[in-house]
Amino acid sequence: MDFISFLTSLGTSCVIFVILMLLFAWLSKKPGNAVVYYPNRILKGLDPVNGGSRTRNPFAWIHEAMTASEQDVISMSGLDTAVYFVFMGTVLGILVLSGIVLLPVLLPVSATDVSVMKTAATTSNGTFNKFDKLSMGNITPKSSRLWGFLLATYWVSFVTYYLLWKAYKHVSGLRADALMSPEVKPEQFAILVRDIPGFKGQTRKEQVDSYFRAIYPEKFYRSMVVTDNKVVNKIWKELEGYKKKLARAEAIYAKSKTTGKPEGVKPTNKTGFLGLCGAKVDSIEYYSGKIHELIPKLESEQKVTLREKQQDAALVFFTSRVTAAAAAQSLHAQMVDKWTVTDAPEPRQLIWTNLKIKLFQRILRQYVVYFIVALTIFFYMIPIGLISALTTLDNLKKLLPFIKPIVKMKALKTLLEAYLPQLALIIFLALLPKFLFFLSKAEGIPSVSHVVRAASGKYFYFTVLNVFIGVTVGGTLFTTFKTIQNRPKSVVDILANGLPSNATFFLTFVALKFFVGYGLELSRIVPLIIYHLKRKYLCKTEAELKEAWTPGDLGYATRVPGDMLIFTIVLCYSVIAPLILPFGVVYFGLGWLILRNQALKVYVPCYESYGRMWPHMHKRVLAALILYQVTMFGYFGTKKFYGVPLLLPLPILSLLFGYVCSQKFYRFFQDTALEVASHELKEIPNMDQVFRSFIPPSLRSEKNDDDQFEDALSQSVSRTGSFV
Amino acid sequence: MDFISFLTSLGTSCVIFVILMLLFAWLSKKPGNAVVYYPNRILKGLDPVNGGSRTRNPFAWIHEAMTASEQDVISMSGLDTAVYFVFMGTVLGILVLSGIVLLPVLLPVSATDVSVMKTAATTSNGTFNKFDKLSMGNITPKSSRLWGFLLATYWVSFVTYYLLWKAYKHVSGLRADALMSPEVKPEQFAILVRDIPGFKGQTRKEQVDSYFRAIYPEKFYRSMVVTDNKVVNKIWKELEGYKKKLARAEAIYAKSKTTGKPEGVKPTNKTGFLGLCGAKVDSIEYYSGKIHELIPKLESEQKVTLREKQQDAALVFFTSRVTAAAAAQSLHAQMVDKWTVTDAPEPRQLIWTNLKIKLFQRILRQYVVYFIVALTIFFYMIPIGLISALTTLDNLKKLLPFIKPIVKMKALKTLLEAYLPQLALIIFLALLPKFLFFLSKAEGIPSVSHVVRAASGKYFYFTVLNVFIGVTVGGTLFTTFKTIQNRPKSVVDILANGLPSNATFFLTFVALKFFVGYGLELSRIVPLIIYHLKRKYLCKTEAELKEAWTPGDLGYATRVPGDMLIFTIVLCYSVIAPLILPFGVVYFGLGWLILRNQALKVYVPCYESYGRMWPHMHKRVLAALILYQVTMFGYFGTKKFYGVPLLLPLPILSLLFGYVCSQKFYRFFQDTALEVASHELKEIPNMDQVFRSFIPPSLRSEKNDDDQFEDALSQSVSRTGSFV
Repeated sequence: MDFISFLTSLGTSCVIFVILMLLFAWLSKKPGNAVVYYPNRILKGLDPVNGGSRTRNPFAWIHEAMTASEQDVISMSGLDTAVYFVFMGTVLGILVLSGIVLLPVLLPVSATDVSVMKTAATTSNGTFNKFDKLSMGNITPKSSRLWGFLLATYWVSFVTYYLLWKAYKHVSGLRADALMSPEVKPEQFAILVRDIPGFKGQTRKEQVDSYFRAIYPEKFYRSMVVTDNKVVNKIWKELEGYKKKLARAEAIYAKSKTTGKPEGVKPTNKTGFLGLCGAKVDSIEYYSGKIHELIPKLESEQKVTLREKQQDAALVFFTSRVTAAAAAQSLHAQMVDKWTVTDAPEPRQLIWTNLKIKLFQRILRQYVVYFIVALTIFFYMIPIGLISALTTLDNLKKLLPFIKPIVKMKALKTLLEAYLPQLALIIFLALLPKFLFFLSKAEGIPSVSHVVRAASGKYFYFTVLNVFIGVTVGGTLFTTFKTIQNRPKSVVDILANGLPSNATFFLTFVALKFFVGYGLELSRIVPLIIYHLKRKYLCKTEAELKEAWTPGDLGYATRVPGDMLIFTIVLCYSVIAPLILPFGVVYFGLGWLILRNQALKVYVPCYESYGRMWPHMHKRVLAALILYQVTMFGYFGTKKFYGVPLLLPLPILSLLFGYVCSQKFYRFFQDTALEVASHELKEIPNMDQVFRSFIPPSLRSEKNDDDQFEDALSQSVSRTGSFV
Repeated sequence: MDFISFLTSLGTSCVIFVILMLLFAWLSKKPGNAVVYYPNRILKGLDPVNGGSRTRNPFAWIHEAMTASEQDVISMSGLDTAVYFVFMGTVLGILVLSGIVLLPVLLPVSATDVSVMKTAATTSNGTFNKFDKLSMGNITPKSSRLWGFLLATYWVSFVTYYLLWKAYKHVSGLRADALMSPEVKPEQFAILVRDIPGFKGQTRKEQVDSYFRAIYPEKFYRSMVVTDNKVVNKIWKELEGYKKKLARAEAIYAKSKTTGKPEGVKPTNKTGFLGLCGAKVDSIEYYSGKIHELIPKLESEQKVTLREKQQDAALVFFTSRVTAAAAAQSLHAQMVDKWTVTDAPEPRQLIWTNLKIKLFQRILRQYVVYFIVALTIFFYMIPIGLISALTTLDNLKKLLPFIKPIVKMKALKTLLEAYLPQLALIIFLALLPKFLFFLSKAEGIPSVSHVVRAASGKYFYFTVLNVFIGVTVGGTLFTTFKTIQNRPKSVVDILANGLPSNATFFLTFVALKFFVGYGLELSRIVPLIIYHLKRKYLCKTEAELKEAWTPGDLGYATRVPGDMLIFTIVLCYSVIAPLILPFGVVYFGLGWLILRNQALKVYVPCYESYGRMWPHMHKRVLAALILYQVTMFGYFGTKKFYGVPLLLPLPILSLLFGYVCSQKFYRFFQDTALEVASHELKEIPNMDQVFRSFIPPSLRSEKNDDDQFEDALSQSVSRTGSFV
């Protein structure tokens, strides 16, 4: 790719971004679109636009995002989102501090060295462009100028250590604040017990109750045995479906009344397959009948489920936060694989179907999943390598001669040259996350947030291994295949030549990602169109409308690995081609700004893990740093530099830093520290409410009748005590 | 070594053993020796000899040792000793079950193959002796007879898995029984808190009290801040020394009165260096004066210590076992390296000087110690290799020509040939344990039992790496040095030839160890002589006499690695030379019997770790098994056997087995399971007594005055509650 096509790519991306920005400024002012651009505020019962005036500055959101404090983010979008911004801020800080030193120092050092430029011109068909002159590739081997690059490598590393340490400390404090909050949070009073051993003569509930009452005679409140809810869930979903359809039919009927005919038209439907065949019936009557039929069925199934479908897991409730926190960390049974405990996740993110899976099966599943993921990573390596190698215009012309006339158009050619390789990559990556999420769930993990973390880790390894290393090594290998036959000695130089020449590819990739990606993110064009289509043609009731605009969450499972990929790329090229740093800074700066707007106004978090994502982010930033340090070690080696051994301490230092961090901070992200849990609550917790919040909707009684829970849900014991 | 010298070695050892046995039978009957042969029973206030008759069978101890139940061992010698016998029993079981199958199957298979015998006779100067004919070395390469050996390898492995699993389960049960015992054990009510962070405005004691009282408002009893006791200990030791000397002087004076002169002779001593110079004074007056001088000094130093020498660690006491057990496992502080908790060891095995060491310093110390140990292991490799290679008689004759006339004496030559290499080895190994114990203590470990475990692990690695692998590989290399020059191809066969030819060396080693080692153990000749010498010439008071006969404990730090070395050797040779199995069986059978006698009657345990040694024993038996499996893999390889890949699953299976065991059992050996701790006590614990048992003797007040402890030892709060 030459300099012109790079500028074209950059320019086009920039133009698209500006258009999307303007679209956003225009669309977000329309009152009808408020539910698309401010759903989080609306759901929280706030006025969509601060101050409410329509005449305000269209770029006011920038000011609002900039001035919003961390506390605002936490209160609007939860701690996990705040932690995500700490991550963005830290990464941004690393790149900014690196750039401040590296750009003014390394660029002149590279640009004034001319030796490689000359020799390269004779071997690589003049592809050496203006960027390469500013990169480390332009430095003569063994040159004493390399000392500057060596120092730069150290500078970047130490900046990363410093900011990571600060961030870990800060996030640990945030987590502590959230956990010691005086609000009553149900999950802080419960623990999750799995692997309950077999028993005789007692019901599962009696067994659990007597076990925990013996250990915690004063603080034990109640237990809730996990049940197999498959059948009851199915009936409940069916019932809810009919209720929605009834509401819809009633809405249609009400609407038809107002216009002309006062008696209205009663809506009808067919009872057969998908409503396409069978007898035609009156919808309202039909659905009401169905609902009346299903309610007793649900109730009897609820009873059967609670009585007969109890499984080997339970939620146990305590009247004190400290006791629950200590219980979640303590070994309960002599056999370690029995009565295993963890702290309970939030009710909304519990994965009930996974709770019954036994310890050794969980471990086995985990390894099987790891094996499948490893296979996936290496199986995808082949197609992605082929795609990124084939989708250069020159290759396409050779392989598909019929596209030659298209390519001859100058403008189109430049455009194609600019986007073709990256587009294939981006589309390709979009296929994977769902699969990884499914696999992570199959491991037997009990909470959604944990599954997201697991999936995010897998996606990170996938992207770094395939995109970054795959493209660098694969691309370099492909272009040097011919060279090898002619000059076998140059194989050693593959990496040295490969890294800088791929720098422009990644430069474009980063630019595309931030301009187009964040442009689409901010303008929300796709959700807007979908919402308006649904509103016009599908939604009849208020509930349906709300469902149409309710936004998801930030989607850490793919967002964090995506950011991590960009960070890894920018970090690895930071010293080799410092020009990539401003692009990284814009990516994370723009991302920070736009996502802050989205977090404050759009996305609604669907779980709260109290910042447990952070150790994973920290570990991966550190992994990227080590990859960078090892790459630099190899790259300095190909430059035949005498100072290479001086780079060896860096990866060791990074491992040491990671070890110290994990020793100092990590366990608090797994367990709740008792000093934190012992902070006072603002009120005595309503234990019944705490308990009820964990009952899944399909098991909730319509009549608010306590008796039916007595089979799987133990009775509370009236008890007065100090509630901490 | 030929067959004759082997038989001589065995015969001599056996004769020594029989002599020692007879000595024991004769000496142990003498009433004056009861304190040497039955100290454990005497200290427990029992009659030395069961039944008390002097006319009983001199071999009654065998019957008593055989019939003693596990409960007897636990009540006489503690759980750790019982666990040691489980280890002995398991290892014995492995060898017996292996022998039952391997001996009748493999010996005929080896003996009837003649090919190697023939070829070897031409190359190895006729050293191929009758043993080698019974070993796997006698099998023709590629022979289908090797299938039998392959199956034997599997049989030994599965026997080991089965018995290890059973033993782990059994020991876990024993540990649970001990921990749920209704007796009040002070260490079950306390936790050890280290890494207490800096503070302002409060005393350390107030800080600890307020911290734990906030978290455990109901169960917190008191805390005891750890102090720097160096000075107070010195004064206390001085005082105790003078008290002993005073008692001794009074005893001498009293003795002198009875004989002839009724006024007696007042003993005198010199006040100068070591009592050798200086003014002559009346001992009784002098020592009484010193004691009167030191008591107020001790008291004031106790006050200073408690007030001003408080350190960053404390013992915290709870009124409930469950709370203490849960507290010892829970994260207390947000920063994981602050307020670190562990369960408190017994008062008698607490290492006060190590308690103040901070977390990261402990980790650093650990790695430094590991590094030193690794250096030691590889530094000693050279001398031990040289020694075992040089101390064959043939080599000695060459190196030291002047010993030739000695060697010419037939009997002496056979004797020297039999013992020389092994004696050097045994003496050499005796130098190390103290050093390893010192190193382990320097790691900052808080309890003696833990230090013993750590030292034992180091000693195990040392013995296995140096003795077993060093002798096998080193010896083989040495003998083949000349061969290499002549026939370079035979280098590949070094291992194949080396293993069987070293078998006889190890056979003798094992025999020497059990006959002479256990003979000395049972007869207690050395302690007996020392006791009688002391009684005659040194001891004047009852206290001094008791000190002279008080036995130590079993000494796990060296005993377990010693046993493990024998087991590793026997296991590794079990299939190659099955004739080693009976020797192993005799070693562990005899050991089991004799040590059971010693445990019941002689040794007094100096700590109780509730079986925490077991996971280490288990891990090392498994390590020996893996070493055996890998050795077999290599050895089958040199036999050019087609079934070699079939041996690959074995080490993987062993790792898997170890993983499952550690998942199922291990954590209970680190932490107390709450279901175990929640068992009822037979009485409400006297918390003051529990608290006082942790006060080191040098800080104990003579006047039983509570006030002086108020500085470092927090006041108890009168509180009534349920004591679990």
